[in-house]
Amino acid sequence: MDLIVDPAVSRTTSCCEGAIETDAVIIGAGPVGLFQVFELGLLEIKAHVIDSLPAAGGQCIELYPDKPIYDIPALPLCTGQELTERLLQQIAPFAPAFHFNQEVTLLRREPDGRFFLETAQGTRFLSKTVFIAGGVGAFRPRMLKVDGLERFNDTQLFYRVRDPARFVGKQLVIVGGGDSALDWALHFAQPGPHQAASVILLHRRDVFRAAPANVAKMKALCEAEQMQFVTGQITGFEQRDGRLIELKLMGNDGVTRRLPLDMLLVFFGLSPRLGPIADWGLGIDRKQLLVDTEKFQTTEPGIFAVGDINTYPGKKKLILSGFHEAALAAFGAAPIVYPDRPVQLQYTTTSTKLHQVLGVESPVFD
Amino acid sequence: MDLIVDPAVSRTTSCCEGAIETDAVIIGAGPVGLFQVFELGLLEIKAHVIDSLPAAGGQCIELYPDKPIYDIPALPLCTGQELTERLLQQIAPFAPAFHFNQEVTLLRREPDGRFFLETAQGTRFLSKTVFIAGGVGAFRPRMLKVDGLERFNDTQLFYRVRDPARFVGKQLVIVGGGDSALDWALHFAQPGPHQAASVILLHRRDVFRAAPANVAKMKALCEAEQMQFVTGQITGFEQRDGRLIELKLMGNDGVTRRLPLDMLLVFFGLSPRLGPIADWGLGIDRKQLLVDTEKFQTTEPGIFAVGDINTYPGKKKLILSGFHEAALAAFGAAPIVYPDRPVQLQYTTTSTKLHQVLGVESPVFD
Repeated sequence: MDLIVDPAVSRTTSCCEGAIETDAVIIGAGPVGLFQVFELGLLEIKAHVIDSLPAAGGQCIELYPDKPIYDIPALPLCTGQELTERLLQQIAPFAPAFHFNQEVTLLRREPDGRFFLETAQGTRFLSKTVFIAGGVGAFRPRMLKVDGLERFNDTQLFYRVRDPARFVGKQLVIVGGGDSALDWALHFAQPGPHQAASVILLHRRDVFRAAPANVAKMKALCEAEQMQFVTGQITGFEQRDGRLIELKLMGNDGVTRRLPLDMLLVFFGLSPRLGPIADWGLGIDRKQLLVDTEKFQTTEPGIFAVGDINTYPGKKKLILSGFHEAALAAFGAAPIVYPDRPVQLQYTTTSTKLHQVLGVESPVFD
Repeated sequence: MDLIVDPAVSRTTSCCEGAIETDAVIIGAGPVGLFQVFELGLLEIKAHVIDSLPAAGGQCIELYPDKPIYDIPALPLCTGQELTERLLQQIAPFAPAFHFNQEVTLLRREPDGRFFLETAQGTRFLSKTVFIAGGVGAFRPRMLKVDGLERFNDTQLFYRVRDPARFVGKQLVIVGGGDSALDWALHFAQPGPHQAASVILLHRRDVFRAAPANVAKMKALCEAEQMQFVTGQITGFEQRDGRLIELKLMGNDGVTRRLPLDMLLVFFGLSPRLGPIADWGLGIDRKQLLVDTEKFQTTEPGIFAVGDINTYPGKKKLILSGFHEAALAAFGAAPIVYPDRPVQLQYTTTSTKLHQVLGVESPVFD
């Protein structure tokens, strides 16, 4: 098989220069990717974790940070946020290196058997094993669909705020009805050093999928004339000298309005995309990576897949199944990382060795 | 195959009379058996749970109730006691019926396809499915090995205290160095309505595997001459008219002593025994039940095995693996319990149906 994804990239890459050498790279920092760190850590396998999102938690945080989950064993009720925090606490003894806001675009096997990985952001790894805990794929912002507007991407049209200073003192139009749209509208509308010249919040209707407190604050700022809220949809735009200067808006009342602006911020949420993973030559069935149920290894030895991204007979997309898969995948990887050491199952309750690894004291028994 | 265990029992059993009819019987109330209740409950499958122990928790409670476990996902540290309590809380919405202090001795398929089960204590079940979550087997007390002493079992020699009233006002010898021995010695030695005529605690040495507070209390009672502590081992006994009247004891000082007594209580801990399960005609490999990894079904359709008692390629005896197995086994059982209803995976976070089943309120979204 050929694991090269993007021939253009691989030709221009002088092999592995400056790459981070490690035992394991985990692609995905959702709950299963995080627990993979733990299971590898117990076997003394060091891991780097890469995620396209800016923080740990994956779908749990992106899709339902505050909604209760009831089916994590022995956690009768927890939110995605709490689950993520608990897992981060659990893996803290293993001090994993996180690489957020990065997407792996290249994965290829080197002549020495290790894997070379590169992210779109240029970080490189040489790893003995790879764990794909990619969930439903890399999360990408949902796009605003107005013909021709995409040419202003990253100059006047933004789907994420990486550098808030860039928007200070500008005429902003912020689009969306969720917490992200509300949060940034409040951030730039409130008097102070962050303040924009003007803030217009645009949403298709007067109902928000956001914290009620944020909605109340927004309405108060509108009444104080520090920002404006408009319902409607963008239907077109005007430009001058290659710059976006005005949006055309169809209001819910059927009236077309014009909104002059410097910058457009769009928060329509994130949607997952399998992305480059689909091109790595791994066995796939309906967008899921095929794995065995002994080691949760893909069709390529040394590459494991755990959580929602894999499939096997009986597979259910449950977080608790991902935890089990991560445990068995770690045992599957151990002989690759430590070819000369037999792998033995030890228990965290009784193993002095595991207590050392976890940095906890071993109790003394009679 | 023939699932009849004990022909003597089955011949004298008039079939299924007075049996409890149910969807599922779970054998074993350890963490995996408890979580099996939860996964079945989400699919609206009602379960009865049988355990040879007097309470839920299995090995976790019998072997290490107070020792920390570090590898339950999202629970960085918990004791066996806490894990059990959390699982009991999680399954409370499904109100399972527990049958403690009972051991299943008979398991056989009826002509209508259901399973007939009977415990040594005479409880009978007719169930559509069976889940063996038996861990390392049924826990039995470790026996005192002194030739001939077994004839006093349950009359003057006891391994469990089922009815404390029976020992009040008697001359007791209590053997063991763990918490059970200490707890009962304190119970019967302390002044009050429970008090025995005399209490001698016998242990092979002056070091205890017990809570330090209990050891301190015991020593204080000895100083107050309300009980006695003796080190040594039982080497023989005297009887008169079929009654045990005296123990012979070899002290650590090499001197033989005689201890007159009415009752002997022995607490040497519990040891597991696969027991009748080995005789049910199920596929077995080195004392483990063979299962597939799609449904965790044994070689007999409708009988599932989850947790430490099963085996398959890659199997690790981890509690978290048992949780995954319980989830997939529940999905495997659903078409047997509800042959006319398609089984769909729903999420506890978003499914209104599952919120109903769990008895929680569904959030309202935009």
